[in-house]
Amino acid sequence: MNDKIKILETFENQYPNRDYRIIHTAPEFTSLCPKTGQPDFATMILEYIPDKLCIELKSYKFYLNSYRNDGIYFESVTNKILDDLVKVCKPREMKVTAKFNVRGGISSMVIAEYKKQK
Amino acid sequence: MNDKIKILETFENQYPNRDYRIIHTAPEFTSLCPKTGQPDFATMILEYIPDKLCIELKSYKFYLNSYRNDGIYFESVTNKILDDLVKVCKPREMKVTAKFNVRGGISSMVIAEYKKQK
Amino acid sequence: MNDKIKILETFENQYPNRDYRIIHTAPEFTSLCPKTGQPDFATMILEYIPDKLCIELKSYKFYLNSYRNDGIYFESVTNKILDDLVKVCKPREMKVTAKFNVRGGISSMVIAEYKKQK
Amino acid sequence: MNDKIKILETFENQYPNRDYRIIHTAPEFTSLCPKTGQPDFATMILEYIPDKLCIELKSYKFYLNSYRNDGIYFESVTNKILDDLVKVCKPREMKVTAKFNVRGGISSMVIAEYKKQK
Amino acid sequence: MNDKIKILETFENQYPNRDYRIIHTAPEFTSLCPKTGQPDFATMILEYIPDKLCIELKSYKFYLNSYRNDGIYFESVTNKILDDLVKVCKPREMKVTAKFNVRGGISSMVIAEYKKQK
Amino acid sequence: MNDKIKILETFENQYPNRDYRIIHTAPEFTSLCPKTGQPDFATMILEYIPDKLCIELKSYKFYLNSYRNDGIYFESVTNKILDDLVKVCKPREMKVTAKFNVRGGISSMVIAEYKKQK
Amino acid sequence: MNDKIKILETFENQYPNRDYRIIHTAPEFTSLCPKTGQPDFATMILEYIPDKLCIELKSYKFYLNSYRNDGIYFESVTNKILDDLVKVCKPREMKVTAKFNVRGGISSMVIAEYKKQK
Amino acid sequence: MNDKIKILETFENQYPNRDYRIIHTAPEFTSLCPKTGQPDFATMILEYIPDKLCIELKSYKFYLNSYRNDGIYFESVTNKILDDLVKVCKPREMKVTAKFNVRGGISSMVIAEYKKQK
Amino acid sequence: MNDKIKILETFENQYPNRDYRIIHTAPEFTSLCPKTGQPDFATMILEYIPDKLCIELKSYKFYLNSYRNDGIYFESVTNKILDDLVKVCKPREMKVTAKFNVRGGISSMVIAEYKKQK
Amino acid sequence: MNDKIKILETFENQYPNRDYRIIHTAPEFTSLCPKTGQPDFATMILEYIPDKLCIELKSYKFYLNSYRNDGIYFESVTNKILDDLVKVCKPREMKVTAKFNVRGGISSMVIAEYKKQK
Repeated sequence: MNDKIKILETFENQYPNRDYRIIHTAPEFTSLCPKTGQPDFATMILEYIPDKLCIELKSYKFYLNSYRNDGIYFESVTNKILDDLVKVCKPREMKVTAKFNVRGGISSMVIAEYKKQK
Repeated sequence: MNDKIKILETFENQYPNRDYRIIHTAPEFTSLCPKTGQPDFATMILEYIPDKLCIELKSYKFYLNSYRNDGIYFESVTNKILDDLVKVCKPREMKVTAKFNVRGGISSMVIAEYKKQK
Repeated sequence: MNDKIKILETFENQYPNRDYRIIHTAPEFTSLCPKTGQPDFATMILEYIPDKLCIELKSYKFYLNSYRNDGIYFESVTNKILDDLVKVCKPREMKVTAKFNVRGGISSMVIAEYKKQK
Repeated sequence: MNDKIKILETFENQYPNRDYRIIHTAPEFTSLCPKTGQPDFATMILEYIPDKLCIELKSYKFYLNSYRNDGIYFESVTNKILDDLVKVCKPREMKVTAKFNVRGGISSMVIAEYKKQK
Repeated sequence: MNDKIKILETFENQYPNRDYRIIHTAPEFTSLCPKTGQPDFATMILEYIPDKLCIELKSYKFYLNSYRNDGIYFESVTNKILDDLVKVCKPREMKVTAKFNVRGGISSMVIAEYKKQK
Repeated sequence: MNDKIKILETFENQYPNRDYRIIHTAPEFTSLCPKTGQPDFATMILEYIPDKLCIELKSYKFYLNSYRNDGIYFESVTNKILDDLVKVCKPREMKVTAKFNVRGGISSMVIAEYKKQK
Repeated sequence: MNDKIKILETFENQYPNRDYRIIHTAPEFTSLCPKTGQPDFATMILEYIPDKLCIELKSYKFYLNSYRNDGIYFESVTNKILDDLVKVCKPREMKVTAKFNVRGGISSMVIAEYKKQK
Repeated sequence: MNDKIKILETFENQYPNRDYRIIHTAPEFTSLCPKTGQPDFATMILEYIPDKLCIELKSYKFYLNSYRNDGIYFESVTNKILDDLVKVCKPREMKVTAKFNVRGGISSMVIAEYKKQK
Repeated sequence: MNDKIKILETFENQYPNRDYRIIHTAPEFTSLCPKTGQPDFATMILEYIPDKLCIELKSYKFYLNSYRNDGIYFESVTNKILDDLVKVCKPREMKVTAKFNVRGGISSMVIAEYKKQK
Repeated sequence: MNDKIKILETFENQYPNRDYRIIHTAPEFTSLCPKTGQPDFATMILEYIPDKLCIELKSYKFYLNSYRNDGIYFESVTNKILDDLVKVCKPREMKVTAKFNVRGGISSMVIAEYKKQK
C-alpha cells in the first residue's frame, strides 16, 4: 500500500496569488473491510486551497481506484489519503471527508483536516 | 442497565496527533417508553474527536441494541449514552444527538455534548 | 407465535355497500433475524377493501409490536401477517407490503396479496 | 352533524359537454378522535368529473372547517364527505382520498369512490 | 377576451406520419380572481399530438401572458385554453392541466382533454 | 386564555450539571384568526436548555391543543407561548419558532428567544 | 410608483421589549421587465425585527400586488421595497431577499439589508 | 447534418432471443436555436429493445455531441435522432424523450416512438 | 466466470400456494469495464415471484460481489445475472434491473425479464 | 480568448450607499476539455456587492456563452471569469463558484473570491 502515492500527479497552480478552493467529490470509492473481507463503499470529498501545485484529476481517480482490493479501516483510509495528498501537493489547507455506506444499520463519516503552519 | 457499558469496546487511535472527527449515524435505535411500555424509535448520531481510543463499531451497535427492551426517557437515554461513551473512550470532544419519531403528534430531539477540560 | 392473532380486534364496517380502500402505513416494525438474533426493521403497509369488518387500529399496532422479540424471516413475517389479518377481518381484498431496511448492503421488499373468491 | 350539507354551494358547469376533471387538495383538515377527544389532522383530496354542477370552493372550505370540533372516525368522515358531495353536486364520477397524520406510529389513508350509473 | 386566439401562431409539422407527443410546461401563468380581483397563479401543462400544425412556442407564451389582467375562474380558463388551442392547431389529441396555487388553504387542479374523432 | 399556563407540567432535570438542548417539533398547531374566525395552522418548534426543570411532553401537547378555538395573532401566540413556558420551566435558554401555513399567498414565521440573565 | 407606500399599514408591536424576528415569504411576486415588457416572477422574503410597529400582512400583500403592471429592474425593486418598508415600520433590522425565476437560462437573487443606527 | 449518422456504431446483441430493454440518459445535450443562435440544453433519454444490434455507447455520445453547433428546432432534433438510430440499429422498439430546459419561462418535452412492424 | 452460479443458494418457499413478490435492491454492485479496465458501478434490482425455491440473501450478496474484478459489459452482466438466478431458483417470474452510474456524461439502465411458460 | 471581456457591459448602480448582494446562477455553462476536446458542463454562480457599476445580465450571458467552443481547464476558467468581471465592474466583493458535472466518476467545484482593498 506504500506505493500508492506514486500514482498521484500534480500540475502547476496558475493562480498562486489567490487563495481559492477546489473540491472533488468521488461517490464511487470502494475498499475491503480488513476483518470480513467484504466490500466497503464511500463517497470521498476532497477540499483544498492549492499553494504551488494542483492535484491532477485523472491521477487522483486512479489513486482512489487503487484501494479497490485493499483491506483497510474507515479511520485509517481517510487519514492516509489526507497524508498522501498533503505530501504530494503541499496545499495551504486540505480536508478529506469520507462518507461510508450503512454497515450493520450504521453509516459512518470520518473528517480529517490539514492546515499549513505559517 | 448498569452493565451496558461493558458491551462497549475500543481500539487504539492510529492518528492521535491530528484532531479528526468520526460520526456514526444509527437510524435503528429503539427502546420502550417507561410510562406506557410502548416502543420508542430514534436516530442516534454520535460525533467525536478521538484522543487515544476509538469506539469499535460493532460493539457500539450491540450497545445500542441492548436498550431494545429497557424503559427509559428521551432525556435520560441521550445523556446516559454520552456518559457511557465518554467513560469508555475518553474523547477530546463528543456529541450525542437523538432524533425521536413522532409521538402524540410531536417529534423530539435531545442534544448533549462533552468537551475535555484542558 | 400462534397466539398473536388474538391481539387483533375488528369493528363493524359502516359502509359495506361501497368498495372503499383503507391503507395503514407503519414505519416502526421491528423483529429479530432468526439466524443472527440481530434486530430487523421494516415499514409495513397494509391496504384492504373491508367487507363486514374493519381492523381496529390500536389492536393492529399491538399486533405488530408483538413481533418485537420474535426471530422470523422476511418472507415468513409478511405472509403470516397477511394470513392473520385475512382470517380475522375477512376482507374483499388485502395486500401487505413489507419494506425492510438495508442488511449487508441490500434492502428487501416482500409483497403478498389476497383476493376473496366470488 | 346532519346540517353540514347545507353549507355546500354549487354553481352551473359551463362545459357540460366535456368530461373534465377537477381536483381540490386541502391539507388543513382537522377533526377530533371520538375515543380520546384528541385532534386528528388530514389532507383531503377531492377529485371529480362534474355533470351539471360544480362545487363552489369557498363553501367547500367552510364545509371542511365545520368538522373542526366533531368527534368522528377516519373511515366515517371519508365516506360521509363523499356522500354529502355526491348528494349536492351529482357528479359523473367522484373520489375522496383522506391522508391522516401519524397516530401511534401509524399513518392511515382512506379512499372512497362514486360512479354515476348510466 | 375573444381576440386572444389571434395571438396564437402555428408552423407546419415536419413529421406528420408519426404520432409523437409535445409537452410545454409553463409555471408562470397568472390571471385575476373574478370575485375578489386578487391575482391567481398556476402552472399550465399543455400536452398534444400534432396533426398538420404545431403551436409556435413564443406566440403560446404571449397568449398565456394575455390573461394577466383578466378576471376568470379556474374551470373556465382551463377549458377556454383547450378550446382555443384545438381551434388553432387541430391536433390529434390535446390535454391542458392547470395546477393552481393554494387559495384559502386549498390548491386546485383542472384537467381537460380533447381527442379528434376518427 | 390566562389559565392555559396551568395545563403545563414539569419534571425534575436529571442532568442539571450539563448544558444540553431539547427540541420539540409540533406540526399540528391550530388556532383561529381573530379577524376572520378562519383556522390558522402552524408548526411550533420549541428549543431549550433546561435548568432545574424539563417540560412534560404530554402536558405541552395539551397546552398547544388548548389554542384550538382561540382567536389570536401570529406574533402574539408565539410570544405568549414563550412567556408561558419560561414562567413554568425557568430554562437557561429557550426559543420558540412558529411556521405558519400560506395565507393570501404568503407564509409567515415568527421567532422569539429568551436567555436567562447571569 | 411613488404612492405605493400609502398602501402599507402597520399595527402596534405588543412585545417591544423583546428582539424577535418576523419572516414573510411571498412566492407570487410579479412585475414587468422595463426593457421587454415581459412578466418577471420572484419569491420575496421579508425578515425583520420590529421596534414599535409591525407590518400588517394584508396591506403588505396589496403593496406587493401593486407592482404587477410596473416595469422595474431586479436591483431596483428589491431596494425600493426595503426603503418603503423601513420608512413605514421603522424596524430595528430588516432584510429583503428577492429570488427571481430563470430568464435567459440564468436565475437571479438580490439581497438588501437595513440596520437601525444606535 | 446528413453525415451525423456515420458517427453511430453498433455491436452484435448477445441475447437476441430475449426482449430486453436498454435505456441511456444523457443530461448534457446542447444545440443552438435556429432563430436566435442562442444555445439550447436538453436531457436526451433513449429507450429501446434491441434486435440484432446494440448501439455502441461512446459513438452515441459523439453522435449527440455533433449537434453542439447546429441550429435545429426541438421537434426536429427529437424526430431526427429517432430516425437515425432506427436506421442504424433496427431495434424492435425505440423511444426518444427530449426534455428541454426553460426558455421564456416554459420548459418543453418531445417524445417520439418507433415500433417494428411484424 | 462460469462458476459464479455455484455461489448461489436457495431455501424452500414456505408459501408456494400464493403468488407473492420478493424484491432485493443492491446499490453496491461493481465490476470492471472490459475495454478500459476502469470500475463500473450499478444498483441491481432483483424482483421475482418464487415457485418452490427462494434465493438465500447472503449467497446472493456473495454472488454479486464475485463480479468485483471481472471485466463485463452492461448488457451482458444484466442478462447473465438473470440467466443464473433463473437456473438456480426456477421462479414463476423474474426481472433484473441494472442502473449504471454516469459514464462519459451518460447513465444507462438495462432491464431483462423472464416468465415461466405454462 | 482575450477579447471576451469586451462582451461584458455594465450599468450604473442606483443604490451605491448600501452594501447589497446580487447573485446570478447560470446552470448552462459549457466549454471543452483542453485535453480530450470533449464538452464540459458547469453551473456558474456569481455573487457580488456592487460599487458604482452592476453587470448587465444579457451581456453576462453572452460572455458565458462565448466559452462554448474554447478548450479550458476547470481551475483556469473559474479564475479567469472572476478576473474579467472584477476588471469590468470593480465590485466591493465578488465570488465565482463553478460546479462541474461528473467526469470519470468525480464531480468538481472551484470557488474563487475577490475583496476590494480599503
